[in-house]
Amino acid sequence: MNRLYDYLPSGSGYKVRLLLAQLNIACARVELSITKGKTCTPEFVAKKPNGRILVLEIGDDACLAESNAILAYLAEPTPFLPADRLDRARVMQWLFFEQYSHEPHIAVARFWLTHGEPSEEQRRRLSDRHTSGYAALDVMEAHLAECSFLVADEGGFDLAPYGHAHGWFERVASEPEHIPITQG
Amino acid sequence: MNRLYDYLPSGSGYKVRLLLAQLNIACARVELSITKGKTCTPEFVAKKPNGRILVLEIGDDACLAESNAILAYLAEPTPFLPADRLDRARVMQWLFFEQYSHEPHIAVARFWLTHGEPSEEQRRRLSDRHTSGYAALDVMEAHLAECSFLVADEGGFDLAPYGHAHGWFERVASEPEHIPITQG
Repeated sequence: MNRLYDYLPSGSGYKVRLLLAQLNIACARVELSITKGKTCTPEFVAKKPNGRILVLEIGDDACLAESNAILAYLAEPTPFLPADRLDRARVMQWLFFEQYSHEPHIAVARFWLTHGEPSEEQRRRLSDRHTSGYAALDVMEAHLAECSFLVADEGGFDLAPYGHAHGWFERVASEPEHIPITQG
Repeated sequence: MNRLYDYLPSGSGYKVRLLLAQLNIACARVELSITKGKTCTPEFVAKKPNGRILVLEIGDDACLAESNAILAYLAEPTPFLPADRLDRARVMQWLFFEQYSHEPHIAVARFWLTHGEPSEEQRRRLSDRHTSGYAALDVMEAHLAECSFLVADEGGFDLAPYGHAHGWFERVASEPEHIPITQG
């Protein structure tokens, strides 16, 4: 039985939960709180190399960290990863773009704004995150103007001007077996 | 003929050049300077979605951005990407770790320290980057203590305590067809 170590409000966890749901893969969930220090127990650290919550335990002894590596692993034998080599590389291109240019700005801003009152330092740095986050949205918007295929944004970004991206959010949300972010 | 849009001091470019050399894949290089604005010409922007220099042009019309997506593409049909599904996922895990937890700290610190005098703002933020960069090195060090398999570090990090990581640097550097970072 697979087991996902997860934190329900986490976007990284949601990506994995969504794909598991879409693929109808049974997976137990172990809810961990990033604010309560459970991720620092020796048992948990032994399971994962990178010190972050999200880990997929595969069977009895294999563990995989990094949300996008988990997505690639789960998607590989399914239509969610294209058969064509260049198309597969383009999926990886967008997954790396998400981790480098999107998540550190948009997801971190969302975390600061949704986990209690932001600190002074966080407030000071929020405008930089918004600038970089909008730059990432601009890249997605330009790309999605040319092709088909994100929902309520909690990072304080105004998504109204991002019409093509909005269309993509809606198409993603209307896929079979779609689940909302707060569903385990 | 493949063509790599590149900037010689770039570690992201180096990763791709190193794999191309190790795989004996012929590839023309187009040197672009990140400090001279050549990456903003309309012709170049049309080739790449993410606004960054590194792009692999494959044949006449296909372009691939994101260094680690390029690595995955090039490595896929070779022994540089393992045949076993879980091992492949673990390669992806470390590539995503590198982009999220390593590059933004170590490569950015290296860039600030090797491209002219760092600004006041960069000096102020350097200690945060060093803290996060050392955390990434700690993760690598702990992992490399358990198994076998980076060279002169220019980001101001003291690598002396990282014995296992150093052993890995040396094993990587002694692979056949290894090239130094400044070789095109």
